[in-house]
Amino acid sequence: MPEDTHVESQDAQAGEEVLARVRGSFERQGLMALLGAELTHVTPGRVQITLARRPEVCQQHGYVHAGATSAIADSAGGYAALTLMPATSEVLTVEYKVNLLAPAAGDRLEAIGTVLKSGRTLSVCQLEVYALGEHDERKLVAAGQQTLISVPGETAS
Amino acid sequence: MPEDTHVESQDAQAGEEVLARVRGSFERQGLMALLGAELTHVTPGRVQITLARRPEVCQQHGYVHAGATSAIADSAGGYAALTLMPATSEVLTVEYKVNLLAPAAGDRLEAIGTVLKSGRTLSVCQLEVYALGEHDERKLVAAGQQTLISVPGETAS
Amino acid sequence: MPEDTHVESQDAQAGEEVLARVRGSFERQGLMALLGAELTHVTPGRVQITLARRPEVCQQHGYVHAGATSAIADSAGGYAALTLMPATSEVLTVEYKVNLLAPAAGDRLEAIGTVLKSGRTLSVCQLEVYALGEHDERKLVAAGQQTLISVPGETAS
Amino acid sequence: MPEDTHVESQDAQAGEEVLARVRGSFERQGLMALLGAELTHVTPGRVQITLARRPEVCQQHGYVHAGATSAIADSAGGYAALTLMPATSEVLTVEYKVNLLAPAAGDRLEAIGTVLKSGRTLSVCQLEVYALGEHDERKLVAAGQQTLISVPGETAS
Repeated sequence: MPEDTHVESQDAQAGEEVLARVRGSFERQGLMALLGAELTHVTPGRVQITLARRPEVCQQHGYVHAGATSAIADSAGGYAALTLMPATSEVLTVEYKVNLLAPAAGDRLEAIGTVLKSGRTLSVCQLEVYALGEHDERKLVAAGQQTLISVPGETAS
Repeated sequence: MPEDTHVESQDAQAGEEVLARVRGSFERQGLMALLGAELTHVTPGRVQITLARRPEVCQQHGYVHAGATSAIADSAGGYAALTLMPATSEVLTVEYKVNLLAPAAGDRLEAIGTVLKSGRTLSVCQLEVYALGEHDERKLVAAGQQTLISVPGETAS
Repeated sequence: MPEDTHVESQDAQAGEEVLARVRGSFERQGLMALLGAELTHVTPGRVQITLARRPEVCQQHGYVHAGATSAIADSAGGYAALTLMPATSEVLTVEYKVNLLAPAAGDRLEAIGTVLKSGRTLSVCQLEVYALGEHDERKLVAAGQQTLISVPGETAS
Repeated sequence: MPEDTHVESQDAQAGEEVLARVRGSFERQGLMALLGAELTHVTPGRVQITLARRPEVCQQHGYVHAGATSAIADSAGGYAALTLMPATSEVLTVEYKVNLLAPAAGDRLEAIGTVLKSGRTLSVCQLEVYALGEHDERKLVAAGQQTLISVPGETAS
C-alpha cells in the first residue's frame, strides 16, 4: 500500500513517538474505519488523510458527501495540531468552517490539515481537500479553517 | 419506529410532494445509510435527522465524531432549504461552520436544520445538534450556520 | 435618549457591577466611538449595540459596510459573554463567522449577542443584526456565530 | 507615499480598467475612509489594504479592534474577487469567517485577500491580516475565508 509507505517514510520527520500517538488515536476512531479513511502522511504540523470514493460515502449525486469530506478534513487538522503538542495532551475540535468549492468527484480525496498557529491552549489549522483522478490530477474541492483546544490526555501516564 | 411516525404526522405540514422529494433524496445518500442516520421530521423550513451513537460513528473517546455530527447537521440544513424550493430545484452546500459545544454523548443525536433565509439563489440555515439521553433529556452539543445554493435539478422534467 | 433608558432599566437585571464593567470597557473601545455605536441593552448573557446608518460607516452602495456590521456584532457577542464572567476576567474573540443576509439599509442597525454556551475557558455566542426602518420595522440583515476565550483581566485587583 | 507607488507599479498587472474600477469603488466606501484604510496593492486575484494603528480603530487594550481588522480583510477579499469579474459585475460578501490569532499590535496592519476559486456566481477568498512593526517584521494576526456572490453592476452601461 503506497500510503503506508508514505507514513513510514515520515517517521524520521514526525518522530516515532508522535507518529505512534497519532496512529494509535486514528485507529481508535470508529468513524474513520467506517468511512474507509487512511492516515497517509504525518509530519510535524501537517497531516494527510485519504478517502477512496465509493457509494457508501457519497450523497445523492454520487459525489463524496460534504459530511465525509469534512470528517476527514477535521481529523487531518486535529492530528496536525496534535503533532505539535506534548505527549500528555490531546486536542478537541472547538469549531471549523469549510467551503465546498467543487463536486468531490475523482477516485479519492486527500484531506490535508496544516497548523497555522499552535498555542498553549488554542491551535488553528488550515484545511484543504483535493480530489484525485485516475492520472493523479489534483483539484481543490474543499477549503476550511479550524480551531482546536488542547486538553490534558485522558490516559496520560 | 417512533421516528417514522413523526415523519408521517408531518405529511400534511410539509406537503406530500415535498416530503417525497426529501425522502427520495435522503434514501439515495449512501453516507446517511452508512452512518445509520434517519430522517425523523420534515416540515417546511425545518428538518430533523437522528443518529444513534454506536462505536462506528465515534472518535477515540467514544463520543460521536465531529465529522458525523456535522454530516447529519449539514444534511438536515440542506433538506430544510429544499423544502422551500420549487420541485425542479436542488440545493448544494456552499459552506458551513459548526461549533462543537460539548461531547456528543447520550444514546442518540438529533440534528435540526432551520431556514433563516430562503432566497432565489442562496439560502442560509441554522444548524443545531442535541444529544439525547436515556430519559430524553436534551443537551445542545453543536451549533452552526450553513450557506446553500439552489441549482436546477438534474432530473427536472 | 431612549437607548440610555433601556440600559438603565436593565441595571437590576445585569447587576450594577457587571453593567459598570461592560460600560467601562465599551467606552474605552475607540472603534465603537469612531463608528458612532451605542451600547443599548445589557442583560446577563445578552447585549445589544445600536449603530445609526450614515455615509461614514457604509460601503459604495450606501448600505452599512459588512465590516461595520460585523464590528458591532462582534462587540455585542463579546460583552454578552463578559456579563457571565467573574469580575476579574476579560474575554477575547477567538473567531467568528457572519452571513450577510440582506443589504443593511434602514435608519439604524441593532446587533444582538446572545450566549449559547458559557464555559470556564471558551464561550460561544449567537450574533444577529437587524436593520430598523423609520417605523421600527425590523429585518434580519446578518447572522453569525462567535467563539470567545476568557483571560485573566489586565487590571484585576 | 510608498503604498501608492505599489499601486501604480501594479497597473500593468491588474490592467488599467480593473484598477480604475477597484479604486473607484474603494473611494466610495465611507467606512474605509473613516478607518483610514488605504488600497496598497491590486493584482489579478489578490488585493492588499493597509491600516495604520491609531486609538480610533482599537479596542479597550489598544490593539486594533477585531471589527476593523475584519473590515479591511473583508474589503481586500471583495476587491480581489472583483479583479477577476467582467466589468459589468459587482461582488457582495455572502459570509466570512475570521480567526484572530494574535493581538493586532504593531504600527499598521496589512490585509490580503486572495481568490481561491472564482466562479460565475460564487467566489471564495482566503483572508490574511499581518501586523507590521517598526522594522517591517510581519506577524500573522488574523486568517479567514470568505464567500462572495457576483451580481450585475448597478451602473452597468
